[in-house]
This record gives sequence, C-alpha cells and structure tokens, in this order.
Amino acid sequence: MSRDAEPRAVVLLSGGLDSATVLAKARAEGRACYALSVDYGQRHRAELEAAARVARACGVVEHRVVHVDYGQFGGSALTDANIAVPTAPSAGIPVTYVPARNTIMLALGLGWCEVLGARELHIGVNAIDYSGYPDCRPEFIAAFERLARLATKAGVEGEEFRIRTPLQQLGKAEIIRLGLSLGLDYADTVSCYQASDEGAACGACDACRLRREGFRAAGVADPTRYRSPS
Amino acid sequence: MSRDAEPRAVVLLSGGLDSATVLAKARAEGRACYALSVDYGQRHRAELEAAARVARACGVVEHRVVHVDYGQFGGSALTDANIAVPTAPSAGIPVTYVPARNTIMLALGLGWCEVLGARELHIGVNAIDYSGYPDCRPEFIAAFERLARLATKAGVEGEEFRIRTPLQQLGKAEIIRLGLSLGLDYADTVSCYQASDEGAACGACDACRLRREGFRAAGVADPTRYRSPS
Repeated sequence: MSRDAEPRAVVLLSGGLDSATVLAKARAEGRACYALSVDYGQRHRAELEAAARVARACGVVEHRVVHVDYGQFGGSALTDANIAVPTAPSAGIPVTYVPARNTIMLALGLGWCEVLGARELHIGVNAIDYSGYPDCRPEFIAAFERLARLATKAGVEGEEFRIRTPLQQLGKAEIIRLGLSLGLDYADTVSCYQASDEGAACGACDACRLRREGFRAAGVADPTRYRSPS
Repeated sequence: MSRDAEPRAVVLLSGGLDSATVLAKARAEGRACYALSVDYGQRHRAELEAAARVARACGVVEHRVVHVDYGQFGGSALTDANIAVPTAPSAGIPVTYVPARNTIMLALGLGWCEVLGARELHIGVNAIDYSGYPDCRPEFIAAFERLARLATKAGVEGEEFRIRTPLQQLGKAEIIRLGLSLGLDYADTVSCYQASDEGAACGACDACRLRREGFRAAGVADPTRYRSPS
C-alpha cells in the first residue's frame, strides 16, 4: 500500500517507553504516523531528544514539537524545581502528576488531527502501571473522545474520531514484549523523571522503578543507562 | 469580603468584547479572578495588549499569558498568513475557525485551575452570535465540564468543577448592555481578526461586523477605532 493510501494518525510521543511502543504499533498496523511531542517545561531535554530518535526509527511522516509554557503554573515535581521527585511509591496521586497534562496534549493532538484530516489520535496511557494519574483512566479517555467529536469540524459533519489507547490494559512487561516483537530498540527511549542531559536515568524515581520492574518481569535485558546501580 | 475569602475563578481572556464582559461579570459576582490569555500565533499583537488593559481595569489577582505555538499547524485564516480573512459571511464553518482552539484554551485553563484550587473556569462562548464554530456550542461545553471532572485531582476527590459560560444565550447587543452596566469600557477591547498593531479594526471581517451590529442594536455609541469607514 502506498504511503498516501495509509490512514493518517497523530501519535503523542513523549520519548518514553510507552509512547514509543504505541508509535511502533501504529506503524505496524499501517498508519501514516504524525508524531507530536510537547515541550511543556520538563526538567530535562533528554526526553525530547529520545522522542526525535524514536520518531526517526519508526519512520514517521513528520515529527513536530509544540512548545507550551504551562510549566509556569507549577504544581508538579516535573515542572517545578522546588518540588522534589519522590524516590519511593506514595499513596494517592503523586507529586509528579502535571495538572491537566493529558488534557492539554490530547487537545493539541486534536488540533493537528483536524488540520491533517486524521481521524485517530494515539496515546500511551495505561490503566495498570499508571502511577495513579486521574487523566490516564479509561473513563477520562472516553470522555475526551466524546468531546473531540463535538469539538471538531469533522465531528460536526458526522465523521468518526477515535482516541486509540493500545496499552490501556497491558502491564509494563507486556508492553515491553510487544515493542520488542515490533523491532523497537528501547535504548532509544528515556522514561526517567530526572534523566541527565545525556539521557542517563536516576534509577530511583517511580518511572525508573516501573520500567526496571517491567524489563525484569519480561525476562529481557534492560538497555537503560542508569546513573546509580540497581 | 476580603480577597482571600472570594472563590477563585480562572477566566479565559482574549482581549475581545465577549471575554472582557465575562471577566467584568465574574468580578461583579465576587470572584477572585485569574485571567488567562493564550498567545497561539495570532496574526496580531493588539489582542493580547487589549487583554492586559482589560485585566488591569477589572482588577484581576493575576493575568498570565501562555505561549503555545500551535499556529504552526495552520488550517485557519487566524494563524496562517496564506489564508485570507473573509470580509463577507460564509456558509458552514468559516476559515477563521482555529482547529481545537477552545479545547486547547480550556485545557490550559483547567491546568491553572488545578494549581490554584479554583473550581470555576469562565469562557465567553456564545451560541447565538457564534460565527458557526463547533467548539462554541453548549453540548461541547457540557462535554468539557464532564471531562474536567474526570481529568483532575479535585474531581477524583469528589469536588465540583464548573465551566461557566454566562454569555451562552445572549446576543451581541445584550452582551454589550451587560458590560456597560458593569462599567466596562469597550474601547479597551479589540475584536477584529486583523487589527493593526495599534489595535485599529478593519471594519470588514466577521468579528467587526458582529461587533458593529451589536453596538447599533444596543443603541449605544461604538467606541471601536476603525481603519475603514462604516
């Protein structure tokens, strides 16, 4: 099938393990992929560089970075240098939660979908290893999908619009096995909440913990470069 | 009532006539107002300067501008210099529609609400003189309100969250009368889709037409500075 005949999809790509897997899966399913990364004032740049590597490796049609300075609002350890990234699991919604992040990223993706005429927006949310964020839950995604149909020109004209969440019911080990089966090189990805500029992971934050446990449970070698020994 | 005891509200403030009226009303109703403007690559700067004037005049607690370069996606006469702003009413959704704009702005407002602990987000959408944009309809707003409750920490913890649309059922003349009764000076506002850097209106675009007709219908003097005679 020629590239022009492939259905277009916008894929939200953070540069982490989950969104890289979503992109690899969308490509394997014959989507012409438009990868969207959001620079919202994350603490480190390594994540966006990882996104660029993954986008290239997966053969996207285009990779765009939207800059949004909503980190100015603070309220999260990921955007506010005065809030420490925790190194132990916490009860409830953790301080690494970025207020309304997925709503904002989905909204930006929706805008690009409309311009491209894409009818699918892919996001790597996960209801199992989801770190307790409210905007990763299936009911949130369903509500956004409903909103998207009402928000857009295509929706008004009766066209379908889908938010695809292929990782929704997978554990980290299953996600890793899926990505490996699609030829993904997880060395390209960065999950750590406080990676160094060169992409070395702290090995201690929630994201590192979930990632490390995932590789262990999957029984495959972990290609992550850690700063501290495990 | 002291300022600290006033309920907090985030008000989306474009610098136009509608959002200025929403802000004046929210202040009159005793809200501690946090005004949020979004710089998304509009064609002109006059709108953001108008927003700053209105925010000052209404006595907001704080006025923030979030920069989002989603104008890079194009697809609208308001962000793409290659698409002309029409000077006559058109059928269907006009080319001045900016894909997903209200979804993006509400999402950003929601993020600030969460950080502030505000339970209200005000927006000047209008179902009567709404120029045919899908994301101004009451069903869109209701869907976003539902989404917001699912998206947020406060929602998870069972707190209410409201999207307030006080202009939803008002015509332009009624909006103008409301604002004047609240002491608003509409000379501070800029509605034109292609205002000059100094804020002079073209007098020909849809936004100018609706605004001019509004002042006429309200039977009050129009303080707008037009470049071309009416």
